[in-house]
Amino acid sequence: MTWNVYLSGEIHTGWREEIEAGTNKAGLPVAFSAPVTNHAASDDCGVAILGAEQNKFWHDNKGANINAIRTRTLIEQADIVVVRFGDKYKQWNAAFDAGYAAALGKPIIIMHGADHQHALKEVDAAALAVTETPAQVVDILRYAITGELKGY
Amino acid sequence: MTWNVYLSGEIHTGWREEIEAGTNKAGLPVAFSAPVTNHAASDDCGVAILGAEQNKFWHDNKGANINAIRTRTLIEQADIVVVRFGDKYKQWNAAFDAGYAAALGKPIIIMHGADHQHALKEVDAAALAVTETPAQVVDILRYAITGELKGY
Amino acid sequence: MTWNVYLSGEIHTGWREEIEAGTNKAGLPVAFSAPVTNHAASDDCGVAILGAEQNKFWHDNKGANINAIRTRTLIEQADIVVVRFGDKYKQWNAAFDAGYAAALGKPIIIMHGADHQHALKEVDAAALAVTETPAQVVDILRYAITGELKGY
Amino acid sequence: MTWNVYLSGEIHTGWREEIEAGTNKAGLPVAFSAPVTNHAASDDCGVAILGAEQNKFWHDNKGANINAIRTRTLIEQADIVVVRFGDKYKQWNAAFDAGYAAALGKPIIIMHGADHQHALKEVDAAALAVTETPAQVVDILRYAITGELKGY
Amino acid sequence: MTWNVYLSGEIHTGWREEIEAGTNKAGLPVAFSAPVTNHAASDDCGVAILGAEQNKFWHDNKGANINAIRTRTLIEQADIVVVRFGDKYKQWNAAFDAGYAAALGKPIIIMHGADHQHALKEVDAAALAVTETPAQVVDILRYAITGELKGY
Amino acid sequence: MTWNVYLSGEIHTGWREEIEAGTNKAGLPVAFSAPVTNHAASDDCGVAILGAEQNKFWHDNKGANINAIRTRTLIEQADIVVVRFGDKYKQWNAAFDAGYAAALGKPIIIMHGADHQHALKEVDAAALAVTETPAQVVDILRYAITGELKGY
Amino acid sequence: MTWNVYLSGEIHTGWREEIEAGTNKAGLPVAFSAPVTNHAASDDCGVAILGAEQNKFWHDNKGANINAIRTRTLIEQADIVVVRFGDKYKQWNAAFDAGYAAALGKPIIIMHGADHQHALKEVDAAALAVTETPAQVVDILRYAITGELKGY
Amino acid sequence: MTWNVYLSGEIHTGWREEIEAGTNKAGLPVAFSAPVTNHAASDDCGVAILGAEQNKFWHDNKGANINAIRTRTLIEQADIVVVRFGDKYKQWNAAFDAGYAAALGKPIIIMHGADHQHALKEVDAAALAVTETPAQVVDILRYAITGELKGY
Repeated sequence: MTWNVYLSGEIHTGWREEIEAGTNKAGLPVAFSAPVTNHAASDDCGVAILGAEQNKFWHDNKGANINAIRTRTLIEQADIVVVRFGDKYKQWNAAFDAGYAAALGKPIIIMHGADHQHALKEVDAAALAVTETPAQVVDILRYAITGELKGY
Repeated sequence: MTWNVYLSGEIHTGWREEIEAGTNKAGLPVAFSAPVTNHAASDDCGVAILGAEQNKFWHDNKGANINAIRTRTLIEQADIVVVRFGDKYKQWNAAFDAGYAAALGKPIIIMHGADHQHALKEVDAAALAVTETPAQVVDILRYAITGELKGY
Repeated sequence: MTWNVYLSGEIHTGWREEIEAGTNKAGLPVAFSAPVTNHAASDDCGVAILGAEQNKFWHDNKGANINAIRTRTLIEQADIVVVRFGDKYKQWNAAFDAGYAAALGKPIIIMHGADHQHALKEVDAAALAVTETPAQVVDILRYAITGELKGY
Repeated sequence: MTWNVYLSGEIHTGWREEIEAGTNKAGLPVAFSAPVTNHAASDDCGVAILGAEQNKFWHDNKGANINAIRTRTLIEQADIVVVRFGDKYKQWNAAFDAGYAAALGKPIIIMHGADHQHALKEVDAAALAVTETPAQVVDILRYAITGELKGY
Repeated sequence: MTWNVYLSGEIHTGWREEIEAGTNKAGLPVAFSAPVTNHAASDDCGVAILGAEQNKFWHDNKGANINAIRTRTLIEQADIVVVRFGDKYKQWNAAFDAGYAAALGKPIIIMHGADHQHALKEVDAAALAVTETPAQVVDILRYAITGELKGY
Repeated sequence: MTWNVYLSGEIHTGWREEIEAGTNKAGLPVAFSAPVTNHAASDDCGVAILGAEQNKFWHDNKGANINAIRTRTLIEQADIVVVRFGDKYKQWNAAFDAGYAAALGKPIIIMHGADHQHALKEVDAAALAVTETPAQVVDILRYAITGELKGY
Repeated sequence: MTWNVYLSGEIHTGWREEIEAGTNKAGLPVAFSAPVTNHAASDDCGVAILGAEQNKFWHDNKGANINAIRTRTLIEQADIVVVRFGDKYKQWNAAFDAGYAAALGKPIIIMHGADHQHALKEVDAAALAVTETPAQVVDILRYAITGELKGY
Repeated sequence: MTWNVYLSGEIHTGWREEIEAGTNKAGLPVAFSAPVTNHAASDDCGVAILGAEQNKFWHDNKGANINAIRTRTLIEQADIVVVRFGDKYKQWNAAFDAGYAAALGKPIIIMHGADHQHALKEVDAAALAVTETPAQVVDILRYAITGELKGY
């Protein structure tokens, strides 16, 4: 069985690549998916394809809906959803994805730094694991998929 | 992952072929499905297989139910449902398919000309994208599946 | 038990009132619901509450989404969905509602004149009864709810 | 029918009371519910009932889980979910609730100021209405429940 | 709590009345429902309301679909489904109802005489109790609802 | 796409083989499944594996439950369920399967001779096609899967 | 809103009565339900109603299935499921109920003494609160239902 | 079709290997899955990956949640769930898994010695087969998958 793992959230650091490199190195049967991480494309996809809008709200609305074609499909097909909260921006879409995954009953792994702990308490409580580093996510995937735990 | 895309609606122009050609050219991993687009076969399949009916209502009923074996199965298996409204006929089956897909939570892309805009407002509001051309549908599929947006 | 019956579709004749009068006369325990039947209010509710839009598409989109708050909630709570197709307009929202109800597994009663028979064959095939008059709908409700059939 | 409306999000201004006052004045059949809006109680409920924790993470975890007994039950029973984003804090629990409600197929009304528009685009796109004031929410509830639109 | 109990199957003996009398005597909070038990009305409801059919198949089809408006709604709302198989007729609709209830996860109580034991083994295996008499059904309802068991 | 077709019902004639031969000849991508058609094995599987029972009821119960491991799994994975009623026996398990498939929303094709028409009216009304011969089932599968209709 | 709370598990101490007394004293709108707590009746209900069995397995099987009519219905209707593990017996049915409730997405409160902590770790991890005393359960119900927390 | 079979429960004897050897020898198309059976790793996975906890409760909680990423995913993907109760320990997680699988509608096979019969009556009653040996499980899998029954 190939495990489908969706990597939601922060798009400005290389955490996805670190997790993918780690799982590849471990030889895990994982297929990763993610939202479009090209920030400009993600913002403009709606108007670029469907035509410009004068009003910023509709500019964003068109883009967000097209992004939803990708993101909801992939979340629904995921076996595990990982959501990372970074240091910048409001990241409400990350929390939205976590809520969406929770209502679907998906196993959720959250990743964030210690400084966000209190603000994320409801999100963390809905998760099966709260991590700080990509290496921890890789360790969890290795254990959950193969049963191997370093040193045991 | 292969994306299953169901192409519902108008059967008298080559919009399906245009979308398929565009996605093939783009090398997208898409498996298309559609209702039977042979109009006469679609009308007569019930009586041709199960025996003639004097009453036109039952003639149509037998056919519509056999068509439903195909269409509902394929809509339920689709990751994305595209529904096109053309210029002619009532096309209530297209709107029915859109409602059916909406209740199943499928991402919906609508395609129609500007003159149908007001009449289709409820259907459009249930969609994640409202397009006018097959090329726009191809662009959306390319972006949703690969994350590629021309010029970004 | 009170039966919830949603009356979808055509809004320019008094078919809803006829059905309600008939069921009241028959003393049936039915609670009817319906979309907003004030055509202008239904068209303009979005911009009237949330602010004007220059673009007709967004004018309609805002309104259609607010109408959906009402219509989808009531369809989902309905025990039976009646959908009437009248003589005018495209009525794609009626067909959309029928598809939506069908995917939810709701018992559907369709009402339309004989001239729409062929165009509605897919919709009719998804229904448990195809009627022409409000009196027939009342008879079905009486029978389904109380088991009483005139003359039996 | 009484409509169940869940009021999620910001807990430091009187927006809930304004909506309730407006719906009461309008005589609407609405039963409102909400998370516990006593900030300190919401933070401490876990340790106050189940015993202190040295580690802040578990302090928060215990509380967040007990709050979830209330919030998830009420969201699941809601006919409409309203989510307000205020000016302060991260408010990730509000976005989480919006995602949770979206995956359950609940009609969502979002309320926020114009300055949050871009950051909330994914959340707004999942909503059937995006408002700025409690009065707009009351107008939507009046229209959705009774069909009445001022001036129509 | 009122328990909804649907009484499916044989319509030519007074088993429903016996169960209802027994539960009334026991003061149980049960609301019973059932298919239309007037055999002629059940057969003819379709053509009586919607117009005659020359072909017996469509005569029956119209009626069966109208009966389904009642029976499926009531089975879906039932807490417990009781299905009785009598001595006469094929009673395929009773077995169909049992299968329908089983797929919905409803608790099923079957009632039949010993001579049908082998033929009903698949149906019996899907039930939580297999009874022979209305008194046993009443005893089960009393126990399941109140916890009272004679002599204990 | 391979279509999964479950062939339920009568086990004493070669109708399954005829359908399989016809679909093979037509080159259709169909994977058939069926209950165990060895009558004695089907009756005795419970006691043969789990130990003898003195009481015929438990003999049958053990077997029926083991058969259900196979039949329910396969019905739930089927895209189309075909149910044949033969001339002999009560065949309540066939009607049970039809009800089970109906509640799961599976497209159902019924096959039976004309003499069973009235007794099967509720079952037929739940089907999308009512056939008399294996050849008709093959024709429906060919049309539903490939869109090909002889002579069109 | 009345909250339905199912009290599963240990039947030999008065913990249910303590919780009910506490919630009554607090004036909470709670309707409690529970399995049959008469041990002998619970063991014998099957044979007492349906006839004796020589084999203890079937004696128990008949009873367990009749108990399931009650327990599964009540668990499915519960807003909150409380499961208590006592000091004696294997109590596998309590753990079974916890798993059943977890798969249905019910909020779960577990109650047990400290000595069972390790053995119940999987069950505790599926709960939103792990308590030791009836008073804690009452405090949680008060907080979850009314938002009131002593001292806040 | 490959059948997914999840082997839940006791981890201190070789019953899983016996079943796997038997099905391999029989050439059955089965893919087995199981919880992590390394007892120490299963206990410590949470703290080993996510950091130590002073409190044993949180030590266990972290581990149980990470184990749940594996176990719930695999149970939900299983076609058949086998649960074995051994001679030692409380094994509440095994009963929890059985309840979880039951609520998901999975076919369940229970395996235990005769001395646990009465204590497991509710669990057994939710199963389609109650076995004592791995060989019986293999026989059931062979029969359910291939229809072959020794001697028939």
